[in-house]
Amino acid sequence: MSFREHLQHVVENVDGAVACVLMGTDGIEVDSHVGHEVGFDVPTLLIEYSSLFRAAREAAVAHQAGVVSELSVQSEHLLVVARLVSPEYFMMVALRPDGNFGKARYLMRVTAPKLLAEL
Amino acid sequence: MSFREHLQHVVENVDGAVACVLMGTDGIEVDSHVGHEVGFDVPTLLIEYSSLFRAAREAAVAHQAGVVSELSVQSEHLLVVARLVSPEYFMMVALRPDGNFGKARYLMRVTAPKLLAEL
Repeated sequence: MSFREHLQHVVENVDGAVACVLMGTDGIEVDSHVGHEVGFDVPTLLIEYSSLFRAAREAAVAHQAGVVSELSVQSEHLLVVARLVSPEYFMMVALRPDGNFGKARYLMRVTAPKLLAEL
Repeated sequence: MSFREHLQHVVENVDGAVACVLMGTDGIEVDSHVGHEVGFDVPTLLIEYSSLFRAAREAAVAHQAGVVSELSVQSEHLLVVARLVSPEYFMMVALRPDGNFGKARYLMRVTAPKLLAEL
Protein backbone atom coordinates (compact mmCIF):
# COMPACT_ATOMS: atom_id res chain seq x y z
CA MET A 1 0.00 0.00 0.00
CA SER A 2 1.14 3.55 -0.71
CA PHE A 3 1.40 6.20 2.01
CA ARG A 4 -1.83 7.73 0.81
CA GLU A 5 -3.71 4.43 0.95
CA HIS A 6 -2.67 3.99 4.59
CA LEU A 7 -3.79 7.55 5.41
CA GLN A 8 -7.06 7.05 3.54
CA HIS A 9 -7.66 3.81 5.46
CA VAL A 10 -7.42 5.73 8.74
CA VAL A 11 -9.85 8.45 7.59
CA GLU A 12 -12.34 5.91 6.28
CA ASN A 13 -12.27 3.78 9.41
CA VAL A 14 -12.57 6.41 12.15
CA ASP A 15 -15.99 7.96 12.75
CA GLY A 16 -15.73 11.71 12.29
CA ALA A 17 -12.23 11.69 10.75
CA VAL A 18 -11.76 14.37 8.11
CA ALA A 19 -8.06 14.16 7.20
CA CYS A 20 -4.86 12.22 7.85
CA VAL A 21 -1.37 13.50 7.08
CA LEU A 22 2.17 12.09 7.14
CA MET A 23 4.65 14.87 7.79
CA GLY A 24 8.32 15.45 8.47
CA THR A 25 9.07 16.86 11.89
CA ASP A 26 10.27 19.91 9.92
CA GLY A 27 6.60 20.56 9.00
CA ILE A 28 6.91 19.47 5.36
CA GLU A 29 4.11 17.17 4.26
CA VAL A 30 5.01 13.76 2.79
CA ASP A 31 1.46 12.78 1.85
CA SER A 32 -2.11 13.37 2.96
CA HIS A 33 -5.69 12.28 2.49
CA VAL A 34 -8.59 14.67 3.04
CA GLY A 35 -11.85 12.77 3.25
CA HIS A 36 -14.40 15.40 4.17
CA GLU A 37 -14.69 19.15 3.96
CA VAL A 38 -15.47 20.92 7.22
CA GLY A 39 -15.74 24.49 5.95
CA PHE A 40 -12.21 25.60 6.79
CA ASP A 41 -8.69 24.75 5.64
CA VAL A 42 -7.70 21.72 7.74
CA PRO A 43 -4.41 20.86 5.93
CA THR A 44 -3.04 24.37 6.53
CA LEU A 45 -4.04 24.22 10.19
CA LEU A 46 -2.25 20.86 10.51
CA ILE A 47 0.92 22.40 9.10
CA GLU A 48 0.66 25.12 11.77
CA TYR A 49 0.01 22.50 14.45
CA SER A 50 3.17 20.64 13.37
CA SER A 51 5.16 23.41 15.07
CA LEU A 52 3.50 22.42 18.37
CA PHE A 53 4.91 18.92 18.00
CA ARG A 54 8.41 20.31 17.40
CA ALA A 55 8.14 22.74 20.33
CA ALA A 56 6.82 20.01 22.67
CA ARG A 57 9.64 17.72 21.62
CA GLU A 58 12.33 20.28 22.31
CA ALA A 59 10.83 21.19 25.72
CA ALA A 60 10.39 17.54 26.79
CA VAL A 61 13.91 16.54 25.81
CA ALA A 62 15.40 19.66 27.45
CA HIS A 63 13.62 18.81 30.73
CA GLN A 64 14.34 15.06 30.83
CA ALA A 65 10.73 14.09 30.07
CA GLY A 66 11.90 11.97 27.12
CA VAL A 67 10.70 11.64 23.55
CA VAL A 68 7.24 13.04 22.73
CA SER A 69 5.18 10.27 21.17
CA GLU A 70 1.72 11.86 20.96
CA LEU A 71 0.08 15.28 21.07
CA SER A 72 -3.59 16.20 20.80
CA VAL A 73 -5.45 19.49 20.44
CA GLN A 74 -9.19 19.78 21.00
CA SER A 75 -10.84 22.91 19.68
CA GLU A 76 -14.46 23.90 19.17
CA HIS A 77 -14.65 22.59 15.60
CA LEU A 78 -11.73 20.14 15.31
CA LEU A 79 -9.89 17.48 17.28
CA VAL A 80 -6.34 16.73 16.11
CA VAL A 81 -4.10 13.86 17.23
CA ALA A 82 -0.44 13.68 16.23
CA ARG A 83 1.72 10.59 16.69
CA LEU A 84 5.41 10.05 16.17
CA VAL A 85 6.21 7.55 13.38
CA SER A 86 10.01 7.82 13.51
CA PRO A 87 12.46 10.43 14.81
CA GLU A 88 11.98 12.35 11.53
CA TYR A 89 8.29 11.78 10.78
CA PHE A 90 4.90 11.94 12.44
CA MET A 91 1.30 11.48 11.40
CA MET A 92 -1.75 13.56 12.28
CA VAL A 93 -5.45 12.78 12.18
CA ALA A 94 -8.06 15.55 12.23
CA LEU A 95 -11.57 14.66 13.43
CA ARG A 96 -14.79 16.47 14.02
CA PRO A 97 -15.10 17.26 17.76
CA ASP A 98 -17.53 14.35 18.23
CA GLY A 99 -15.25 11.95 16.30
CA ASN A 100 -13.96 8.69 17.74
CA PHE A 101 -10.76 9.80 19.48
CA GLY A 102 -10.01 6.32 20.86
CA LYS A 103 -10.36 4.63 17.47
CA ALA A 104 -8.16 7.32 15.89
CA ARG A 105 -5.43 6.68 18.45
CA TYR A 106 -5.73 2.94 17.97
CA LEU A 107 -5.53 3.12 14.16
CA MET A 108 -2.57 5.50 14.34
CA ARG A 109 -0.76 3.05 16.61
CA VAL A 110 -1.42 0.27 14.09
CA THR A 111 -0.66 2.37 11.00
CA ALA A 112 2.54 4.09 12.17
CA PRO A 113 4.74 0.97 11.80
CA LYS A 114 3.28 0.34 8.32
CA LEU A 115 4.18 3.89 7.25
CA LEU A 116 7.60 3.52 8.82
CA ALA A 117 8.23 0.32 6.86
CA GLU A 118 7.75 2.28 3.63
CA LEU A 119 9.67 5.42 4.58
CA MET B 1 -11.60 25.75 49.05
CA SER B 2 -8.50 27.64 47.91
CA PHE B 3 -7.03 27.23 44.44
CA ARG B 4 -4.33 25.02 45.87
CA GLU B 5 -6.80 22.72 47.63
CA HIS B 6 -8.63 22.16 44.33
CA LEU B 7 -5.33 21.40 42.56
CA GLN B 8 -4.25 19.10 45.38
CA HIS B 9 -7.60 17.28 45.18
CA VAL B 10 -6.93 16.51 41.51
CA VAL B 11 -3.41 15.20 42.19
CA GLU B 12 -4.58 13.05 45.09
CA ASN B 13 -7.49 11.53 43.19
CA VAL B 14 -5.87 10.60 39.88
CA ASP B 15 -3.65 7.52 39.81
CA GLY B 16 -0.18 8.54 38.65
CA ALA B 17 -0.75 12.31 38.91
CA VAL B 18 2.35 14.20 39.99
CA ALA B 19 1.36 17.88 39.73
CA CYS B 20 -1.53 20.21 38.93
CA VAL B 21 -1.16 23.88 38.02
CA LEU B 22 -3.50 26.83 37.44
CA MET B 23 -1.91 29.26 35.01
CA GLY B 24 -2.67 32.41 33.07
CA THR B 25 -2.66 31.97 29.31
CA ASP B 26 0.35 34.32 29.44
CA GLY B 27 2.29 31.47 31.12
CA ILE B 28 2.33 33.00 34.59
CA GLU B 29 1.42 30.53 37.33
CA VAL B 30 -1.48 31.39 39.67
CA ASP B 31 -1.04 28.40 41.96
CA SER B 32 0.21 24.81 41.87
CA HIS B 33 0.41 21.58 43.79
CA VAL B 34 3.25 19.11 43.29
CA GLY B 35 2.42 15.77 44.86
CA HIS B 36 5.28 13.53 43.82
CA GLU B 37 8.81 13.96 42.58
CA VAL B 38 9.63 12.22 39.32
CA GLY B 39 13.32 13.05 39.08
CA PHE B 40 13.06 16.11 36.85
CA ASP B 41 11.62 19.62 37.09
CA VAL B 42 7.93 19.20 36.16
CA PRO B 43 6.74 22.74 37.04
CA THR B 44 9.32 24.31 34.73
CA LEU B 45 8.36 21.94 31.92
CA LEU B 46 4.70 22.89 32.42
CA ILE B 47 5.59 26.56 32.05
CA GLU B 48 7.32 25.71 28.75
CA TYR B 49 4.31 23.65 27.65
CA SER B 50 2.03 26.63 28.35
CA SER B 51 3.43 28.22 25.19
CA LEU B 52 2.00 25.26 23.23
CA PHE B 53 -1.46 26.12 24.49
CA ARG B 54 -1.05 29.73 23.38
CA ALA B 55 0.33 28.73 19.98
CA ALA B 56 -2.47 26.18 19.44
CA ARG B 57 -5.05 28.78 20.38
CA GLU B 58 -3.74 31.33 17.94
CA ALA B 59 -3.52 28.80 15.10
CA ALA B 60 -7.02 27.39 15.74
CA VAL B 61 -8.66 30.80 15.89
CA ALA B 62 -6.78 31.99 12.80
CA HIS B 63 -8.03 28.96 10.84
CA GLN B 64 -11.66 28.98 12.02
CA ALA B 65 -11.26 25.85 14.16
CA GLY B 66 -12.61 27.73 17.19
CA VAL B 67 -11.45 28.02 20.78
CA VAL B 68 -8.93 25.42 22.00
CA SER B 69 -10.35 23.73 25.07
CA GLU B 70 -7.82 20.94 25.69
CA LEU B 71 -4.29 19.95 24.76
CA SER B 72 -2.30 16.88 25.76
CA VAL B 73 1.33 15.86 25.35
CA GLN B 74 2.52 12.31 25.91
CA SER B 75 6.24 11.81 26.32
CA GLU B 76 8.35 8.91 27.49
CA HIS B 77 8.33 9.94 31.15
CA LEU B 78 5.34 12.30 31.46
CA LEU B 79 1.79 12.77 30.24
CA VAL B 80 0.43 16.32 30.46
CA VAL B 81 -3.17 17.45 29.93
CA ALA B 82 -4.09 21.14 29.74
CA ARG B 83 -7.66 22.40 29.90
CA LEU B 84 -9.07 25.88 29.42
CA VAL B 85 -10.70 27.31 32.57
CA SER B 86 -11.62 30.75 31.20
CA PRO B 87 -10.38 32.88 28.29
CA GLU B 88 -7.50 34.03 30.52
CA TYR B 89 -6.70 30.89 32.53
CA PHE B 90 -6.07 27.19 32.06
CA MET B 91 -5.10 24.27 34.25
CA MET B 92 -2.60 21.49 33.61
CA VAL B 93 -2.20 18.05 35.14
CA ALA B 94 1.06 16.11 34.82
CA LEU B 95 0.91 12.33 35.21
CA ARG B 96 3.31 9.45 34.98
CA PRO B 97 2.97 7.81 31.54
CA ASP B 98 0.90 4.98 33.03
CA GLY B 99 -1.34 7.43 34.94
CA ASN B 100 -5.11 7.51 34.57
CA PHE B 101 -5.58 9.90 31.63
CA GLY B 102 -9.38 9.48 31.59
CA LYS B 103 -9.76 10.24 35.29
CA ALA B 104 -7.48 13.26 34.93
CA ARG B 105 -9.64 14.64 32.11
CA TYR B 106 -12.80 13.96 34.10
CA LEU B 107 -11.52 15.66 37.25
CA MET B 108 -10.28 18.65 35.26
CA ARG B 109 -13.73 19.01 33.70
CA VAL B 110 -15.29 18.97 37.18
CA THR B 111 -12.65 21.19 38.80
CA ALA B 112 -12.39 23.90 36.11
CA PRO B 113 -15.76 25.55 36.99
CA LYS B 114 -14.82 25.50 40.69
CA LEU B 115 -11.55 27.30 39.95
CA LEU B 116 -13.37 29.72 37.67
CA ALA B 117 -15.84 30.55 40.44
CA GLU B 118 -12.94 31.70 42.60
CA LEU B 119 -10.97 33.58 39.95
